Amino acid sequence: MLVLGIDPGTAICGYAVVEQLGNKIHAVQYGAVLTDKDEKPELRLKKIYEEISALIDHYKPDLMSIEKLFFKQNITTGIPVGQARGVILLAASNQGLPILEFAPSEIKKNVVGTGAATKEQVTYMVQHLLNIKEKPKPDDVADALAAALCGINTASTMRWVNKN
Amino acid sequence: MLVLGIDPGTAICGYAVVEQLGNKIHAVQYGAVLTDKDEKPELRLKKIYEEISALIDHYKPDLMSIEKLFFKQNITTGIPVGQARGVILLAASNQGLPILEFAPSEIKKNVVGTGAATKEQVTYMVQHLLNIKEKPKPDDVADALAAALCGINTASTMRWVNKN
Repeated sequence: MLVLGIDPGTAICGYAVVEQLGNKIHAVQYGAVLTDKDEKPELRLKKIYEEISALIDHYKPDLMSIEKLFFKQNITTGIPVGQARGVILLAASNQGLPILEFAPSEIKKNVVGTGAATKEQVTYMVQHLLNIKEKPKPDDVADALAAALCGINTASTMRWVNKN
Repeated sequence: MLVLGIDPGTAICGYAVVEQLGNKIHAVQYGAVLTDKDEKPELRLKKIYEEISALIDHYKPDLMSIEKLFFKQNITTGIPVGQARGVILLAASNQGLPILEFAPSEIKKNVVGTGAATKEQVTYMVQHLLNIKEKPKPDDVADALAAALCGINTASTMRWVNKN
């Protein structure tokens, strides 16, 4: 099973392609789509849409696993992230890719064991589970790897439940 | 000049195509893209993207005029609207359509004369200015017509400024 994990954002959108083969899991590709804050919003959205679409087209993952957004305050920041998340969901939808959505706390609980895990703990566990030597940077990339792992774990369980 | 006005939303996305020829202004087409709340978010976004793209492709407007989003509270509602707005901006961007963005209060001030205008006042002025007999419904359609008028007025002024 191949999963595309996404940490949605406008300036930095983290992505990770993670594969599970039997009991083995490894990271096929990971990084971030970066956009220029001085660029027009619609051109930044276009770049995010095109790069995520290209990843889906190239790797043909079985599902997308993406963080849900929560903003208790500072909604001015939330709107552009919501817009970016919209074009990412569209990229998946346009290529018929199923989507699993998780709250940040669900991803942390799934990968680290506690929903209150720090960024350092997430990065450590992602490196450990995927045997990645260099610390993935920025944090958005580690979050995308964590989202992919959470997607794989959840999808495996769902299939197990469906079979029995 | 032909302007596509948009009141972004997920369940109801108002749109209006308004044309200015010399001193005359008229509404060419208006309505709303409706999506089913029981449908998956990514399929709702796909429908909005496709219908707005089809409008742009069919009418070939000179610019899109769209409401900015403001949420002081209830951000849970704001995220899906942000996502819808993202795919609408992408639809414009993918067809090279320039975009003007206005705060709701700017549109009301431009069309009604006061930024604190009620929905009834906006609907009345839109009907009056465009000589529309039947009250446009729902409110999102009147808001899209108002956004289009504000875009036309603003673009006219910008051209006038540029010429002198």
